[in-house]
Amino acid sequence: MRYCSDCGAPVSLQIPPGDNRQRHVCDACGTIHYQNPKVVVGCIPEWEDKILLCRRAIQPRHGLWTLPAGFMERGETTREGAARETLEEANARVEVGPLYSLFNLPHIDQVYLLFRARLLDLGFSPGEESLEVRLFEEDEIPRDLIAFQTVRETLDLYFEDRRHERQGVMYSGDIIRELDGEQPQVRVTIHEDPK
Amino acid sequence: MRYCSDCGAPVSLQIPPGDNRQRHVCDACGTIHYQNPKVVVGCIPEWEDKILLCRRAIQPRHGLWTLPAGFMERGETTREGAARETLEEANARVEVGPLYSLFNLPHIDQVYLLFRARLLDLGFSPGEESLEVRLFEEDEIPRDLIAFQTVRETLDLYFEDRRHERQGVMYSGDIIRELDGEQPQVRVTIHEDPK
Ligand SMILES: [Zn+2]
Ligand SMILES: [Zn+2]
Repeated sequence: MRYCSDCGAPVSLQIPPGDNRQRHVCDACGTIHYQNPKVVVGCIPEWEDKILLCRRAIQPRHGLWTLPAGFMERGETTREGAARETLEEANARVEVGPLYSLFNLPHIDQVYLLFRARLLDLGFSPGEESLEVRLFEEDEIPRDLIAFQTVRETLDLYFEDRRHERQGVMYSGDIIRELDGEQPQVRVTIHEDPK
Repeated sequence: MRYCSDCGAPVSLQIPPGDNRQRHVCDACGTIHYQNPKVVVGCIPEWEDKILLCRRAIQPRHGLWTLPAGFMERGETTREGAARETLEEANARVEVGPLYSLFNLPHIDQVYLLFRARLLDLGFSPGEESLEVRLFEEDEIPRDLIAFQTVRETLDLYFEDRRHERQGVMYSGDIIRELDGEQPQVRVTIHEDPK
């Protein structure tokens, strides 16, 4: 951010009175421009013992598989956003169920919220952002071709729960990227919630 | 938003190619400026059978009571944000536990995430944004002087669960404000998650 979105004048980084972090503050009108993490909402669409994945037609991770998910929009609830993304990416209608996983990605300022969802019919097809959409049994999941770590961790937890017939749990996790020397390290912490 | 935060030129509302909603698009550099909901993170700090509330020293709802909570910042996880807000507003140290409630407020584009938390010691005191901070037993809670509906609903659920010794649940709810004629109506929907 270099200019004030309210008046067009340059902004500078300052710690406003009573605050403890640098913010972009307008040199002309004084508006403080806060920047906050974004919410990504999505579904685990279930049909019998299968789940639906989409193969990405867009960057990043073009050609890889993911659960239908995307940025939450203004004016909607998290469940509405998860259903909307599933409709947009897979032309699939779902009834959104309980929250299943919450993942923090502080290095890119995202919070993922993935919900279990019941696929209402088999009339799905690739949306504009998908190359291919299909149902997978557990042993067909292309685990090495999953686009995002949040989705891979969620699918691992999901099938592990299903193998143990474990219900009524959700997970919240952190995916932390840190530099260890020059080597990027990923640290994954997962809590079983609630308990 | 009236000006581009990247180049300072005017923006106009347009539906970008491949999109289905109006966005602020820069007339000069073409940058699309997305606006997204914000996450509010907070704690239910527990000490024996009491919980900690803060009386607000700031607007909105100056003088009313609330759980320590505020906007999630960049570079932190939801639990880190909840602990930070509790430290800032109540000088209180907590160990953040499981997610307890998720509330959508689509009319103001906020998602509340409130976590159960264990207060680590009794050395709390009002932070800059609080007039007063204290522990409440259930029957002392000033239910008519609670600042936010998300907090009131959360406290009602929390004490109801405690009366029934119900554990291992979380709640996700929507607080929808609609105009019915000229009369604003609030519709609250609460799901018990996961189940
Ligand atoms: Zn300005
Ligand atoms: Zn521009």
